[in-house]
Amino acid sequence: MPLQLRSLIRPDATLELSLAEVPQPVPATQDEVVLRMEAAPLNPSDLGLLFGGADMRQAQASGTAERPVITAPLSPGVMAAMAARVGESMPVGNEGAGTVIAGGASPAAQALLGRRVAALGGAMYAQFRAVPAAQCLPLPEGATAAQGASCFVNPLTALGMVDTMRREGHTALVHTVGASNLGQMLNRICLKDGVPLVNIVRQSAQAALLREQGAAHVVDSSSPDFQAELTEAIAATGATLAFDAIGGGKLAGQLLVAMEAAIARRPGQGYSRYGSDVHKQVYVYGSLDRGPIELARGFGMSWGVGGWLLFPFLQKVGPERVQQLKQRVADELTTTFASHYTKELTLAEALTLEAIASYGRMATGEKALIRL
Amino acid sequence: MPLQLRSLIRPDATLELSLAEVPQPVPATQDEVVLRMEAAPLNPSDLGLLFGGADMRQAQASGTAERPVITAPLSPGVMAAMAARVGESMPVGNEGAGTVIAGGASPAAQALLGRRVAALGGAMYAQFRAVPAAQCLPLPEGATAAQGASCFVNPLTALGMVDTMRREGHTALVHTVGASNLGQMLNRICLKDGVPLVNIVRQSAQAALLREQGAAHVVDSSSPDFQAELTEAIAATGATLAFDAIGGGKLAGQLLVAMEAAIARRPGQGYSRYGSDVHKQVYVYGSLDRGPIELARGFGMSWGVGGWLLFPFLQKVGPERVQQLKQRVADELTTTFASHYTKELTLAEALTLEAIASYGRMATGEKALIRL
Repeated sequence: MPLQLRSLIRPDATLELSLAEVPQPVPATQDEVVLRMEAAPLNPSDLGLLFGGADMRQAQASGTAERPVITAPLSPGVMAAMAARVGESMPVGNEGAGTVIAGGASPAAQALLGRRVAALGGAMYAQFRAVPAAQCLPLPEGATAAQGASCFVNPLTALGMVDTMRREGHTALVHTVGASNLGQMLNRICLKDGVPLVNIVRQSAQAALLREQGAAHVVDSSSPDFQAELTEAIAATGATLAFDAIGGGKLAGQLLVAMEAAIARRPGQGYSRYGSDVHKQVYVYGSLDRGPIELARGFGMSWGVGGWLLFPFLQKVGPERVQQLKQRVADELTTTFASHYTKELTLAEALTLEAIASYGRMATGEKALIRL
Repeated sequence: MPLQLRSLIRPDATLELSLAEVPQPVPATQDEVVLRMEAAPLNPSDLGLLFGGADMRQAQASGTAERPVITAPLSPGVMAAMAARVGESMPVGNEGAGTVIAGGASPAAQALLGRRVAALGGAMYAQFRAVPAAQCLPLPEGATAAQGASCFVNPLTALGMVDTMRREGHTALVHTVGASNLGQMLNRICLKDGVPLVNIVRQSAQAALLREQGAAHVVDSSSPDFQAELTEAIAATGATLAFDAIGGGKLAGQLLVAMEAAIARRPGQGYSRYGSDVHKQVYVYGSLDRGPIELARGFGMSWGVGGWLLFPFLQKVGPERVQQLKQRVADELTTTFASHYTKELTLAEALTLEAIASYGRMATGEKALIRL
């Protein structure tokens, strides 16, 4: 029987990762197709569901090389937060690519037979997956599964940031993990579309990498003059919107302070005890730091910090806009939206302590691909 | 010459409060009227401009009883933030009430001659003030200056909270300073309009006061079970929006956590690693605690925290809606929108160390009125 990766939180406060045997899927409706999965990325957005908040530093391996089992303990606090999924063995994997081997009777499903497609929808860490034809993106002729596996999450997230910027009346962007796979993609989009972008990185090597890729504004948060350098870059671009994948710590507040200081330099900005009346926004879309978000004041009263996620964004803009964005991804799959993998793993290899220690770090610029 | 209260930040990092002699104002346009000011409240929103961030615990008095002068030092950090107002002697006072003693030629200005009106617009801590007729609200027959002095800031802020709730699709409210003058007013509005309201107070005596006034949901933040009690009250009301005057500390995050926990109890809410998809919002409209806002996570990804101010709100809803809100204030001036003062001061008495120590505390339920 085909294998599917599963994440289970047991009532004894233990996470258990394993490969389950599941029935071979068939098209359940006339609009469904069945993919023989070929590749699926390990995105940061997959790891929350995969690890369930368990302490992976204490993970232990058991089982066999073909059927590995990983266990790891959950703290009481995390266990309480996970109450709703205790005992429910959950499939994982937001996106991937594969070849359509069966389809329902509808023309849309039949048209995909034999095609290599990318798909979004969970449970992609599996050998087979049935999905609605409408959720598939047919890959351009000659595209490999590795090229297509990350078609959705990073590309649509990066495009969604630029779209959100325009929809909410901003004219430039700040991105706090500039050197990440997503950050490099966003940099390519902004260069192509003429959108001023401030890239924040955490090491000078990352700054050099982004500058080589044409980035005009790169600020290194490890610099002793970070706040001043950030303010300069924000003033140069006029950015009043930032997307932050880090979450915890002081960064969101530092961004607001830098934006407010940059606005204060604009001509005609006199003193107001409430700060400028220009709205400054930070959207937190990730949690690389799960600690508290600390906003030290000093940015006036026209500000917002909030969560941002891809799926609510796609719902908000509607199917027509989503289709346009998807088409752009397909058209620029090997250029703007190229993903780069530093490690390839089989399903079984993904459940080894060594692999988890590597992809679990979510190190900037590193990304693993599961070959199915 | 008439007196006007002034706040000056000197280049030597000293705040100086004094009474300046200013020319008797006359109508500068045909639409202006001149008020002989009679009363003006010391609102928390006035104190930022008045004190300029100076350390008032170190304030010193000089001058005479008729022309007192108060000085207080500013820290280097505050001084840097106040750069734009150094050397500029600023009048203070957002609102007040007085009698119209002169008017321009326009019918609107002439119609107000001899009327007692409330006015909004700064520089109200003065014996006379010229304002556009359109900025005046004629008080009902028989209303006193004390009754009319606080017509705008608190009433329109409280009405603005309920309006914002409706405009942004929420159905209930949380207010974090329930026993304040504004909080008691908001409680009366919500009772009258049938809006479920959770009142947070900081002492049990304040809880009793609000319950006597008909409040159904009062939570005491000094309770050891505060988080659980807050969650219960939020679950009972369905509140997903809070207005917070405190700002610094953990409260905004606690509100989001309580809202998310209350939403999780609703039928049909299964586990999602991103939390519920119900948007939860906290608007910070004050800074009783000027420390950092600390948001400990645990409320999913559908959330926002941001600044909220009366004036941008009024601009957003437009003049027609503002007029409706003002008319409601006039109609319910001595009931829903009654203000209660615990201290009355002359202009000169307002500039004494004793008075500043009292109104500078912004203690809940205490409010001072300047008799002009």
